[in-house]
Amino acid sequence: MSNNQIDKLSCIPLGGVSEIGKNMMVVEIEDEILIIDAGIMFPEDDLLGIDLVIPDMTYLKKNRDRIKGIVLTHGHLDHIGALPYLLKEINVPVYGTKLTLGLVRGNLEEHGLLKDSYLKHVYPGHTAQIGEHFNVEFIRVNHSIADACALAVHTPVGTLVYASDFKFDQTPVNDQMADIHRLAELGQEGVLALFSDSTNAEREGYTMSEKVVGETIDEIFSDADGRIIVASFASNIDRIQQFIDSAFNQNRKVAVTGRSMINNVEIASELGYLDIPDGMLVDLDELKDLRDDQIALITTGSQGEPMAALTRMSRGDHRQINIKSGDTVVVSATAIPGNEKSVGKTINKLFKRGADVIYESVSGVHVSGHASQEELKLMLNLVQPEYFIPVHGEYRHMHCHAKLAREVGIPEENIFINEPGNVMEFSNNDGQTTGSVTAGRVLVDGLGVGDVGNIVLRDRRLLSQDGVLIVVVTIDDRGQIVAGPDIISRGFVYIRESGELISAATRRVEKALSKCEQNNVTEWSILKSEIKDALGSFIYHKIERRPMILPIIMEV
Amino acid sequence: MSNNQIDKLSCIPLGGVSEIGKNMMVVEIEDEILIIDAGIMFPEDDLLGIDLVIPDMTYLKKNRDRIKGIVLTHGHLDHIGALPYLLKEINVPVYGTKLTLGLVRGNLEEHGLLKDSYLKHVYPGHTAQIGEHFNVEFIRVNHSIADACALAVHTPVGTLVYASDFKFDQTPVNDQMADIHRLAELGQEGVLALFSDSTNAEREGYTMSEKVVGETIDEIFSDADGRIIVASFASNIDRIQQFIDSAFNQNRKVAVTGRSMINNVEIASELGYLDIPDGMLVDLDELKDLRDDQIALITTGSQGEPMAALTRMSRGDHRQINIKSGDTVVVSATAIPGNEKSVGKTINKLFKRGADVIYESVSGVHVSGHASQEELKLMLNLVQPEYFIPVHGEYRHMHCHAKLAREVGIPEENIFINEPGNVMEFSNNDGQTTGSVTAGRVLVDGLGVGDVGNIVLRDRRLLSQDGVLIVVVTIDDRGQIVAGPDIISRGFVYIRESGELISAATRRVEKALSKCEQNNVTEWSILKSEIKDALGSFIYHKIERRPMILPIIMEV
Repeated sequence: MSNNQIDKLSCIPLGGVSEIGKNMMVVEIEDEILIIDAGIMFPEDDLLGIDLVIPDMTYLKKNRDRIKGIVLTHGHLDHIGALPYLLKEINVPVYGTKLTLGLVRGNLEEHGLLKDSYLKHVYPGHTAQIGEHFNVEFIRVNHSIADACALAVHTPVGTLVYASDFKFDQTPVNDQMADIHRLAELGQEGVLALFSDSTNAEREGYTMSEKVVGETIDEIFSDADGRIIVASFASNIDRIQQFIDSAFNQNRKVAVTGRSMINNVEIASELGYLDIPDGMLVDLDELKDLRDDQIALITTGSQGEPMAALTRMSRGDHRQINIKSGDTVVVSATAIPGNEKSVGKTINKLFKRGADVIYESVSGVHVSGHASQEELKLMLNLVQPEYFIPVHGEYRHMHCHAKLAREVGIPEENIFINEPGNVMEFSNNDGQTTGSVTAGRVLVDGLGVGDVGNIVLRDRRLLSQDGVLIVVVTIDDRGQIVAGPDIISRGFVYIRESGELISAATRRVEKALSKCEQNNVTEWSILKSEIKDALGSFIYHKIERRPMILPIIMEV
Repeated sequence: MSNNQIDKLSCIPLGGVSEIGKNMMVVEIEDEILIIDAGIMFPEDDLLGIDLVIPDMTYLKKNRDRIKGIVLTHGHLDHIGALPYLLKEINVPVYGTKLTLGLVRGNLEEHGLLKDSYLKHVYPGHTAQIGEHFNVEFIRVNHSIADACALAVHTPVGTLVYASDFKFDQTPVNDQMADIHRLAELGQEGVLALFSDSTNAEREGYTMSEKVVGETIDEIFSDADGRIIVASFASNIDRIQQFIDSAFNQNRKVAVTGRSMINNVEIASELGYLDIPDGMLVDLDELKDLRDDQIALITTGSQGEPMAALTRMSRGDHRQINIKSGDTVVVSATAIPGNEKSVGKTINKLFKRGADVIYESVSGVHVSGHASQEELKLMLNLVQPEYFIPVHGEYRHMHCHAKLAREVGIPEENIFINEPGNVMEFSNNDGQTTGSVTAGRVLVDGLGVGDVGNIVLRDRRLLSQDGVLIVVVTIDDRGQIVAGPDIISRGFVYIRESGELISAATRRVEKALSKCEQNNVTEWSILKSEIKDALGSFIYHKIERRPMILPIIMEV
């Protein structure tokens, strides 16, 4: 089959559209499939007990033989975290830049998948031929993690630019600018479709340069007389470099704490993404031999995660570090939506222990890694795509992004706002949504993948609100009650206060059961529903709560 | 006893310090107690199933005979919501401005307390003599609710200024400026202590005028061709007035939906706080007779509350209003911390239904009701207090506020950052924290007040994470198992997938029980703990979950 005959490709987002997280895009040409990114989503509050959420991969499993490879744009978990779950099902080559694959390696090792996986390292500016139809070019962009790339997927049908998460930092920390020249060139050559980051599409203007944070950090380091403790995202290597630079300027040694921070500093140093002068890094245990003004500590916990190092320090239960008056704590991060309260609590506790705390609301110790409106328009104008697909955002972010695209001249009918699973078909002279495939979310809880569904979640929600009342009755083979009814409660009401209520409730159940007996009702399902109704209405009447009621009948 | 001998007063915050909400301050002179505000706090996410939180009133109950009255600064629930719970215990006169008492009346009526309560209406600028020692002056301030007052409590020992929640709006909607002249006079006369709002102490500059919102709203109303639907806090009467004014200017009729919005509009109109031209207000059912550009709808739901009117419209299950293309929806509020996600979801859904949605992130449709740093310093400079007590804020907010106070010249030792229950004693020449009284939070769940404590909450949390496994065994009087063990699960794992796991778990429990039998163990507590251990470790090993395990032994 010659390329001349190929005039159609499909793109199917399996996640990352109309939602934030679990980014995954499928590109198909004839019998070949390319996957871009495989990310997780952190569960929202209503997903009780769930550890993480991954894309529904049913479509990929059905088409496993056609999949030629997986390309990763950068090393954040919302782009690489679902890779172990994908590779367990479909083991194909994985392409990414050096740091991205460094982070992937750790992740795969935890799942025992590293030795069987094919990781292929690609430099920014280079390309990888994947299958017959996909020539994937890695193009450097700026983001809150080093080695982030946009992708140009060159195909027989045309070129797709997958911008993924990005910003344009005109003064990046590592001097590695986004490759605007190459993006401009691609625009000149002609781009079929652009997929671009909508996270900050609501924000006017430009996102500030990472260097701005460096200047603030430098000032803080030069003003502080005591210890300095900085918390940030463990994956933000450039930020960590800036901490190290500021510490170096002030003759401070640096210690690192928190599992993910230690891991990432190790990986990034090994791969050459962190430049730490010899002898500067010390162990936590060595800090006691240093004066306070010789100490800088880099830690996890910028999101107030309960078990992270900074959170433990704030509670006073970190084994080595006791926060004290004179300490300066810098929380160099923004609270991810949903984490505002826990971040606030950590800050409160640090203040109470006497530390001076510097955080986002009161100073410029953080900048976003995502492009604001002017940069999004710049990307659109550089690439000049025929079709535009906003990705990585909730509906409102994509909606705002679409508006920006119309403003720079993309016709409304060439803009696609998607739900996961939508199938878009593009050819040289046409682009349209043609249908959809199975897509959605799969919940991971402990070792279980997909075994928690709506019923289990509904029960957890019910249990969390008013607890559970268990009613046990033992009957003999003639249907006579021989033990019980006994009522046991958990999460319902403080035991010491519940005695009278529970006795009254027990009498209510006994009454319902003897009524059943009089009417010769012996069917268990009816008995159970009588118990439920009697007890439920009694409890609601008494105390206006609706605990889960669980009748159990035992037969001897 | 003559006033000459009185040289000491105490202030005890029972809530509203080191936390946001449940504001309540106790002032004591000799045998008299004055209470300022009685507010609720909305429960944080970890208070599973809890409806609201009120201050622990143990101290007040112990001193009930000394309480002379309750003064309310304004009608927000974090200042008046705990009043029913207080009045049930201690029925003393309640003082407040007209709108505040109007809102209180509704609240007390719901609790069946209205007919027995003594509500005493005070105008701003006037005073109330409460007991022998408290002469309480109401001083108008601006806030996001009309009729808000600061209090000057004139006592034999000196004057306390309780600023409560406030801002200085130089161009207020109702032309009723904060009484800066009186505050200045008080400063000249001498103020012993100032208690002031820390909510926005982290924010630089000035809080914008409510009029700014009016201008934006006016523009939106004049630009819109279709229906306009505006959502805001039901208590923000000035905001509602601005909606009505804009609607009037554009010849739109106004309908109101949502229970609290309907209530508040009714109360505010009756009391003269809302000026609605005759014939302008229409019923929801009458809207069908109007053209879209003749319609403005004012609704609840600005926080994405699941059952509120706007939220139902966004889901498509509001009985009368179907959102459609051409509608303009204005969410004229900020998301209260913790509500960001639900507000975002509502906006997403409204966009999906074709509405144009205007919200805080993208335009100036909301301003705060709380003073920013420059206003806080202005208050301090006007009042020139000897002592300063930041209130209404988490620790970090009070900490920032204290810093502002030091900047304007209050000595550090004259600033008190409190926890609930702290006792501060002031005299003419001294102020210090002398101890503390019982204080804290009481949880309200349904009709139960204080019957949900840490154990119940811990159980709800446990149940919410991995559900519950119930193991029932029936034994006879010789300790022989005659039925079971049966395992029933809820919220644990999807039933269809659990069969094999549950059978294996049952065998594991049987094994543990027969081991007990061999060892002649018959004590129930030991049997139960053996079941728990065996099942817990089996399940964790299999699936890495830790459900609550509840062994129940029945004896026949």
